Amino acid sequence: MPQFSEITTDLAQLAIELPSWAFGNSGTRFRVFGQPGVPRDPFEKIADAAQVHRHTGLAPSVALHIPWDRVDDFDRLRAHAADLGVALGTINSNTFQDDAYMLGSLAHHDPKVRQQAIDHHFACIDIMGATGSRDLKIWLADGSNYPGQADIRSRQDWLAESLATIYERIGDDQRLVLEYKFFEPAFYHTDVPDWGTAFAQVQALGDRAVVCLDTGHHAPGTNIEFIVAQLLRLRKLGSFDFNSRFYADDDLIVGAADPFQLYRIMVEVIRGGGLDPTSGVAFMLDQCHNIEAKIPGQIRSVLNVQEMTARALLLDRDALAAAQQSGDVLAANEIMMDAFYTDVRGALAAWRSSRGLPEDPMAAYAASGYADQIAQARQGGAQAGWGA
Amino acid sequence: MPQFSEITTDLAQLAIELPSWAFGNSGTRFRVFGQPGVPRDPFEKIADAAQVHRHTGLAPSVALHIPWDRVDDFDRLRAHAADLGVALGTINSNTFQDDAYMLGSLAHHDPKVRQQAIDHHFACIDIMGATGSRDLKIWLADGSNYPGQADIRSRQDWLAESLATIYERIGDDQRLVLEYKFFEPAFYHTDVPDWGTAFAQVQALGDRAVVCLDTGHHAPGTNIEFIVAQLLRLRKLGSFDFNSRFYADDDLIVGAADPFQLYRIMVEVIRGGGLDPTSGVAFMLDQCHNIEAKIPGQIRSVLNVQEMTARALLLDRDALAAAQQSGDVLAANEIMMDAFYTDVRGALAAWRSSRGLPEDPMAAYAASGYADQIAQARQGGAQAGWGA
Amino acid sequence: MPQFSEITTDLAQLAIELPSWAFGNSGTRFRVFGQPGVPRDPFEKIADAAQVHRHTGLAPSVALHIPWDRVDDFDRLRAHAADLGVALGTINSNTFQDDAYMLGSLAHHDPKVRQQAIDHHFACIDIMGATGSRDLKIWLADGSNYPGQADIRSRQDWLAESLATIYERIGDDQRLVLEYKFFEPAFYHTDVPDWGTAFAQVQALGDRAVVCLDTGHHAPGTNIEFIVAQLLRLRKLGSFDFNSRFYADDDLIVGAADPFQLYRIMVEVIRGGGLDPTSGVAFMLDQCHNIEAKIPGQIRSVLNVQEMTARALLLDRDALAAAQQSGDVLAANEIMMDAFYTDVRGALAAWRSSRGLPEDPMAAYAASGYADQIAQARQGGAQAGWGA
Amino acid sequence: MPQFSEITTDLAQLAIELPSWAFGNSGTRFRVFGQPGVPRDPFEKIADAAQVHRHTGLAPSVALHIPWDRVDDFDRLRAHAADLGVALGTINSNTFQDDAYMLGSLAHHDPKVRQQAIDHHFACIDIMGATGSRDLKIWLADGSNYPGQADIRSRQDWLAESLATIYERIGDDQRLVLEYKFFEPAFYHTDVPDWGTAFAQVQALGDRAVVCLDTGHHAPGTNIEFIVAQLLRLRKLGSFDFNSRFYADDDLIVGAADPFQLYRIMVEVIRGGGLDPTSGVAFMLDQCHNIEAKIPGQIRSVLNVQEMTARALLLDRDALAAAQQSGDVLAANEIMMDAFYTDVRGALAAWRSSRGLPEDPMAAYAASGYADQIAQARQGGAQAGWGA
Repeated sequence: MPQFSEITTDLAQLAIELPSWAFGNSGTRFRVFGQPGVPRDPFEKIADAAQVHRHTGLAPSVALHIPWDRVDDFDRLRAHAADLGVALGTINSNTFQDDAYMLGSLAHHDPKVRQQAIDHHFACIDIMGATGSRDLKIWLADGSNYPGQADIRSRQDWLAESLATIYERIGDDQRLVLEYKFFEPAFYHTDVPDWGTAFAQVQALGDRAVVCLDTGHHAPGTNIEFIVAQLLRLRKLGSFDFNSRFYADDDLIVGAADPFQLYRIMVEVIRGGGLDPTSGVAFMLDQCHNIEAKIPGQIRSVLNVQEMTARALLLDRDALAAAQQSGDVLAANEIMMDAFYTDVRGALAAWRSSRGLPEDPMAAYAASGYADQIAQARQGGAQAGWGA
Repeated sequence: MPQFSEITTDLAQLAIELPSWAFGNSGTRFRVFGQPGVPRDPFEKIADAAQVHRHTGLAPSVALHIPWDRVDDFDRLRAHAADLGVALGTINSNTFQDDAYMLGSLAHHDPKVRQQAIDHHFACIDIMGATGSRDLKIWLADGSNYPGQADIRSRQDWLAESLATIYERIGDDQRLVLEYKFFEPAFYHTDVPDWGTAFAQVQALGDRAVVCLDTGHHAPGTNIEFIVAQLLRLRKLGSFDFNSRFYADDDLIVGAADPFQLYRIMVEVIRGGGLDPTSGVAFMLDQCHNIEAKIPGQIRSVLNVQEMTARALLLDRDALAAAQQSGDVLAANEIMMDAFYTDVRGALAAWRSSRGLPEDPMAAYAASGYADQIAQARQGGAQAGWGA
Repeated sequence: MPQFSEITTDLAQLAIELPSWAFGNSGTRFRVFGQPGVPRDPFEKIADAAQVHRHTGLAPSVALHIPWDRVDDFDRLRAHAADLGVALGTINSNTFQDDAYMLGSLAHHDPKVRQQAIDHHFACIDIMGATGSRDLKIWLADGSNYPGQADIRSRQDWLAESLATIYERIGDDQRLVLEYKFFEPAFYHTDVPDWGTAFAQVQALGDRAVVCLDTGHHAPGTNIEFIVAQLLRLRKLGSFDFNSRFYADDDLIVGAADPFQLYRIMVEVIRGGGLDPTSGVAFMLDQCHNIEAKIPGQIRSVLNVQEMTARALLLDRDALAAAQQSGDVLAANEIMMDAFYTDVRGALAAWRSSRGLPEDPMAAYAASGYADQIAQARQGGAQAGWGA
Repeated sequence: MPQFSEITTDLAQLAIELPSWAFGNSGTRFRVFGQPGVPRDPFEKIADAAQVHRHTGLAPSVALHIPWDRVDDFDRLRAHAADLGVALGTINSNTFQDDAYMLGSLAHHDPKVRQQAIDHHFACIDIMGATGSRDLKIWLADGSNYPGQADIRSRQDWLAESLATIYERIGDDQRLVLEYKFFEPAFYHTDVPDWGTAFAQVQALGDRAVVCLDTGHHAPGTNIEFIVAQLLRLRKLGSFDFNSRFYADDDLIVGAADPFQLYRIMVEVIRGGGLDPTSGVAFMLDQCHNIEAKIPGQIRSVLNVQEMTARALLLDRDALAAAQQSGDVLAANEIMMDAFYTDVRGALAAWRSSRGLPEDPMAAYAASGYADQIAQARQGGAQAGWGA
């Protein structure tokens, strides 16, 4: 197994983009519980995100969600972020909250609704110019609830047309990133339900169209690291939306439900070159801190990714390859588990300290008094949530 | 196979309770889409429910949800319902929307929160007196999202205590009905996740405590008719919450996702005597018409239950028993399928007509002009939803 | 809704290929129960398959499995089949029963094992010449049981190489059909686990490489008709392996577990032109009659496909399109259900009779005495099963 | 967190029973691959099991499977085991391989078949007398493949009668242990599919009837540690059948698929007192080493249980309780994860050494030469498998 000191160069490459909406309120269809100090606007969200980066050094950028994060002056927002030490990142479109989208958006049967959704993406591309964002991420709620409700086949063609129209508008240094999801909010069919569909659609668009893999968007039992390996092989893995789940799209803290799965995913990321910044793979969180504190929830999340990345980097790949080649099932598995079971937390703490970061970012944040400060300062106004 | 005329006596026993909340707005965590004419208060909800009964003769009672349906004067609500030809039915408690309940209610670690939830149920029992309801139905959102967050074992004991306290207050002719659910809104553990837990809890209470089976509250692949048979055998099947699902608790129209499953469920209901009114089994809907019109959605739902009940009554049980006894797998299955594949819709239409009901309740409702009427009349005010 | 007489031309196009192995013994890992009269060799299997066609007119060809159906003289087997009124169809390879394949075949880490598996496919292609078969169907058991056991990424590349080598050998009028499967017999990763992988692999090969969709090879909750629509759209749906399942790859009689799903699949097949013989979509069964009689099990299966195809053809597509365009969710669903709930069995019986076929193929087979005849005649020798 | 030295007393209590059949060949329905040196009879199986105990000190007893392990002289087998330092343990009945049991055994519709299955259990009880076994473990393959095939409700009653008859014969110091399983080999319904059914059945029998929880026998997404907690609370957790799975009942090495789940299970075991020998909870393996070497597969398995038990014992329960009481979700989860992430392997190696055991049991076994020895010695004869 490599020494910890041998993996720090690679480890230092890890950068995780935070979702602005993780700092706002979220919940289930049953209830959205508010929390003290929750941001009222994008400026406050970015201030909170900057706290995560400050204590971890892991989260240098923040993804925006339009229209939730629409501001009058994106230059000002960009400067605000820069002042706090972070950058604006991916622009996420939203075509699931306008009344027009009840039965779909880019795949809707009505060309007027499709055009409305396309126009929304054009507006997002305009914002990308102002924010300096590389990626336009498209997650669609499109689908149907009842057999017969929609023409599955035509919708796939309409979707292809809509995406092609948007893709034409994307700049040479920009990317269209298409996310897939097994189900929810549609319950019978979803127009981009699996990686195969996302792959077929982006392949038809061109090189700057890639796939987003949200770790919570699969059928029960799906081997996610296989999809990671496959998309890297096909040069179509654009980004991750990290979170974890026990049942459906639970959007829990990444690594909380199945840390071993996160490790296996990172093993395949590294195997396929995805940790190399030139690979273009973006690591993002997409989570809902429904009941836990949001800023520490995000700190815990990026730490979980870092810890599992460290373990994955410690994997003795030469020994593993030899065991695989010899067909020694138990030896290969033992080598795989060895890195996973290695406790990297102490080494990581020391390494953080050596880089001027707190050894224990969770404790450092708690000690900072920021939580109390925002709880007191952010009185009045409407707390941000999925509606705004 | 029996003649249709031989099953009408049994068929006439079918009565399905409607949920008042099906007439209000509902949705997913992503969006609640409003609809024109949605009720603003419990009186309007009951008026809508009465439309379903008027056109189908199948839905003589309406379940209430407290506090969503709390009114100042339940006598007036009861009289209003009676005027419209329906009765008030089951009282459903709600311990998932108050801030105090973020981490649980009857199973919460804090005795003060448990007492608050118990007191809410006492209030529900008071309402049952005013409404003349037999059943207090308890569905709990209690659970946890992260391993370690809660002491699963202690919570089970606290739950038992809370339920015992409530059970003591139930009248001699009333019942406590405990519902189970696999997951959601809690994502790691749920305090009443399966029929086994509900059974163990109500068994500890006494004869007037029974189980509610919601058809959408199971793990993928669960054989629900087996649970129906088992609970009937154990004399603990109190009620159904009918709906259908493809993935999770989708709350779609009952029979929409898997009509054959609904048929199999009704076959076991009849096999176990559950259709007999003396069995005490209550048939209720619990659905969300997120994108379809609500009143016709409910009409379609009760018709689906009626159609599948008719098919299940047509099952040639003597022939089936003979085939089963002879171990003829294909013959037994063919007999089972024969009734399912029999198109009962024409016979049902004629029978409805003979009873003074519209042959086609969907068409009759559409022709009634009621939808336009409420869309025009119900201007202003706040549409009812899960929050109120 | 169309009249039955309007759909018979399309219905007459339906032809379902039977798997020779359905007539041999099969079972679970726990036990293979034998049955009286089971064939001892490929000639007897084909004789049994011909019974299915004789009574239904639906099953004009028989798929072979190599080496289970290897004979010294395939010309003689072909003539034998022709004498009985059926043709030899798809050749299925087998790379999961030789000791060399314990850790894989076409995706094995050892090039010698890969070459052995490639050579087996070359032998299958030679047999295709003798049998006049169009399709070489490849289902792979390749995968791993433990994380680390295998290099998922390299195996995908090795698989691509192996398939390319085989594809080169395929004749101009022949096709390579790649089947995917979610899991089993490998439990951690499978090398072709989903339609996306099969699609990416066959797309890299060329036009004569297509995908086989086995209806039992998906994750729980997967919308299979969506995949049907998508593969037809991508011109890569080569064939179906029909069966049904409640949990995993149960290989039950098609339509037995979820007849409504079979209907929806046939609706998308027709929607995408897959019923047209020029589409190249082959309809096959792949089932295990572990406890039921095998020949009637196959008869029931082809009848189930025929019945659901008839219902799907009866779907009023103009009305459906209009309802979909108007966004009327309930009306569209009702039109979809109308055809499904229509009892076509009587019309099919009459139509069969008009074509010189028995009205009730199950009864006709039972009355034929064939079952007793083979039970008596086939004494001695080893009953065929998955091992031979 | 406790010191490792504080947990060794508890850790020393851990004893895991090995299944004799793990040393014989096993596989899937597709193929059983043989391995060199596989035992030919129960004596050789026990010799192999003794190797596991010799190198780990964790596996002092061996479960037998009747008829696979039937011998003429059980006294001799018992003495043979004692000579090798192990004891004979649980007797597992088998009612799934005789032709009579194709459609069921204790729940079969034919009373003659039920009696045959009861008699088999009487024979097992006789063997328990000879072997000194405490537990009769009953896992039933009973179920059906097709709707209508069987009368689910009657079978539950027949099952209750059969179990009651067997229970009467059980000695005062013996136990009847009923195992449940979600599906397989039956695919439509299973007569004991869930813990609720097993609980209801054993509760009707009496105090000496308890439940066996096989960790691979649940629906996808099931929270197994909840069931552990519940059965301990209800005083009905009799034993574990440990293994792991990604999809169905994969029977992989325990802890291989989801080590965090195994940890959570052990946390609840300890929480409920199940590690205390007086609790009566038996820890057993039930696995299939289809492709990996069997003896090291078993060694790895018991080590995995030991490692996760150690982590679970290290959990700081006081700190956890405090965090739970304060409602601090993130703190409680962090405490839970802290013990899981602690690398106990070094401490365990040292502790083993201090007890006269090899530090690295896997390496010690490999160095022992035993594998080569049995491969050479066990020539000729039939290798043991599930059939014998």
